[in-house]
Amino acid sequence: MNNLLTAAIIIIGNEILSGKTLDINTQFIASELTKLGINLSEVRIIKDNEQEIVNNVNELKTKYTYIFTTGGIGPTHDDITSESISKAVNLPYEINEQAKNELIKYYSSKEQELNDARLKMAYMPRGAKLIYNNLTGAPGFNIENIFVLPGIPRIMQEMFGELKQFLKTGIEIKTIINDVLLPESVIAKGFADLQKQYPQVEMGSYPYSQDGKWGSSLVLRSADYQALEESSIKLKEFIDSLMN
Amino acid sequence: MNNLLTAAIIIIGNEILSGKTLDINTQFIASELTKLGINLSEVRIIKDNEQEIVNNVNELKTKYTYIFTTGGIGPTHDDITSESISKAVNLPYEINEQAKNELIKYYSSKEQELNDARLKMAYMPRGAKLIYNNLTGAPGFNIENIFVLPGIPRIMQEMFGELKQFLKTGIEIKTIINDVLLPESVIAKGFADLQKQYPQVEMGSYPYSQDGKWGSSLVLRSADYQALEESSIKLKEFIDSLMN
Repeated sequence: MNNLLTAAIIIIGNEILSGKTLDINTQFIASELTKLGINLSEVRIIKDNEQEIVNNVNELKTKYTYIFTTGGIGPTHDDITSESISKAVNLPYEINEQAKNELIKYYSSKEQELNDARLKMAYMPRGAKLIYNNLTGAPGFNIENIFVLPGIPRIMQEMFGELKQFLKTGIEIKTIINDVLLPESVIAKGFADLQKQYPQVEMGSYPYSQDGKWGSSLVLRSADYQALEESSIKLKEFIDSLMN
Repeated sequence: MNNLLTAAIIIIGNEILSGKTLDINTQFIASELTKLGINLSEVRIIKDNEQEIVNNVNELKTKYTYIFTTGGIGPTHDDITSESISKAVNLPYEINEQAKNELIKYYSSKEQELNDARLKMAYMPRGAKLIYNNLTGAPGFNIENIFVLPGIPRIMQEMFGELKQFLKTGIEIKTIINDVLLPESVIAKGFADLQKQYPQVEMGSYPYSQDGKWGSSLVLRSADYQALEESSIKLKEFIDSLMN
């Protein structure tokens, strides 16, 4: 049995909760974690509110192997993630000299001054390890089992590529998807029987419609490749029997 | 002061946590709630797991005015939302006769039989009120302050239109957005000062890039329309002063 690695994502952002912005960071991180054999167990979308951030980080960091946060590490007054996380882990919120140097390099290359708002992005909990990106000078960081990333998808994705090296990895969870143009209600019984035979394979069914007909997207997921392969063959036989 | 109406969404779905599917239900419900003057306070994405559903529903239903769930009310074995919610609210999980009649009508119109998998969609907590849709025979339902909706966006959206009549509504939270082609770090100080002057207006800044330049999307939100208007005028004056 694979020593189970787990994770949660905390999306910090009023812009998601107001409906202004569609969150696409969850899907990216979820797909990456699947490849790394890390089980994404839950996602929470919360407000830019110190107490909410502290409570959620504290609850989830003991429950899962890794926590990823996105959002709230920019230069404006509503960017309170770094300070809130410092409170959650009970460490001083202070200038990280290495981060400050990154910002000095970046802004001098642009011939811009390092004003207070920009310097704010160098404040972090004491002892944080930096996560770099090539697009802006402002790094994300890692403290304890928490990875603190920006909300902008392009920069978040680049930083995720950087931080992967710090993660323990498990056996990749592989997925086999069968899209069948039959309604779920026709497949349900046989599919449930198959799930009982292969408890080590996670089996899900998701309806879709095509040309006015209902189809089912049948998804098999497992890190046990033999069981995955066998159950997939049996699923195909079952579907063939329905089609004839 | 508006008697604050609040809400949480619980997205139930392994397909979101695996990265297979992008969740677009949050953004739809969030936008609708904003129009209804209901404050969406948090969103949780959890697994198709009974204990997780029970725990999250029980925690959130006492914390917020309304809970909306999406996903897991179809005919397949992984659809366990209705049964789990029955456990959470401690009510028998049983056939709802009205829901059964809806299914009979739907499947007889298609000349299909009401098999066990289809009949499963009529099981709910005792006393549930149905939420109809015209696309499939299978209704969502309301029990206590919980609204249980399907995961398929098109059907979920139709049901949301139906259930709106059951919700208490507040004063619509209006939004004014100013997109400015200046980096956040230039705007930060003046914007923070404005936030201090108008605490009743929620002010957020979100970076974007355009033609290789960083811009800031400045968002003002409030149900206090006078403060919203005033702060918006002051924000424009401040931006003009930076542009000159």
